[in-house]
Amino acid sequence: MKHTLSVLVENQPGVLARIAGLFSRRGYNIDSLAVGRTENPAFARMTIVVDGDDRVIEQVSKQLHKLVDVIHVRDITNEPFVDRELILIKVNAEPAQRGEIMQIVDIFRAHIVDIGRNSLIIECTGDEGKINAIQDSLEPFGIREVVRTGRIAMMRGVRDIDEEEDHA
Amino acid sequence: MKHTLSVLVENQPGVLARIAGLFSRRGYNIDSLAVGRTENPAFARMTIVVDGDDRVIEQVSKQLHKLVDVIHVRDITNEPFVDRELILIKVNAEPAQRGEIMQIVDIFRAHIVDIGRNSLIIECTGDEGKINAIQDSLEPFGIREVVRTGRIAMMRGVRDIDEEEDHA
Repeated sequence: MKHTLSVLVENQPGVLARIAGLFSRRGYNIDSLAVGRTENPAFARMTIVVDGDDRVIEQVSKQLHKLVDVIHVRDITNEPFVDRELILIKVNAEPAQRGEIMQIVDIFRAHIVDIGRNSLIIECTGDEGKINAIQDSLEPFGIREVVRTGRIAMMRGVRDIDEEEDHA
Repeated sequence: MKHTLSVLVENQPGVLARIAGLFSRRGYNIDSLAVGRTENPAFARMTIVVDGDDRVIEQVSKQLHKLVDVIHVRDITNEPFVDRELILIKVNAEPAQRGEIMQIVDIFRAHIVDIGRNSLIIECTGDEGKINAIQDSLEPFGIREVVRTGRIAMMRGVRDIDEEEDHA
């Protein structure tokens, strides 16, 4: 089962290497990893999607906790959360095909961010299902290139990720 | 100066650890890193923003090239490119303040993706300048939490990142 871990770390050089190294050495399967700045410049937040059963994920969390630059780890899989990723898709588009592509773009509330002579760049955000769906819909035109961020997630409502936790 | 590197890698466990380790050991300063799947499930693409002068970046590129799972490295800094990142912002919002916040959301073409009793989650995509601007505009209401993906980038027009390069 896929678990989503939200990891708050010190914004220090080498943190990413230590965390990626931990996953790699232990053979844990990272499905997606996104790292970005937070509201506090001293910290960065990683959202890591990792495949494994509950026991494995508990191990991963404990080992992450032990790393010196890791401030907080939370498995938000069973919490109500919003998750999103961002994709840029470059698709073949002869002028005659643009209308049809623009319909797809509208349906997915995506945006065209660049027009070339025979291609378009489309930007779309959503959960994994939506991102896969727009990619499938554009497939017949010929996808030239795809660049995706990893997934980021945030708990719904007023509860913050780093608040007091339910587990010990 | 900030450089944007687009790195195509084999989708293998341990690749991220090797790349992050290289940056860490050499003391290169990663400003942002995003990794995601591509149109081909055998490959993943990393977009790495790294601070350094041209000589340093050339070194980084060469060392990346030497890693066994790295297929292609391109410094797209001086090419015309589209870059985007995604942010989720949880902001304090008493019901009476929602209207004002919704105006800011409209101006930045952002979206409200969750409403709590006293808070909202806002999703916004854009380049770094826009992301910083919306964050500044929401600051007065009280930002509870920020989660950001790293930056992703794609070259404008028909040229693809992994096409034949200008440099040797």
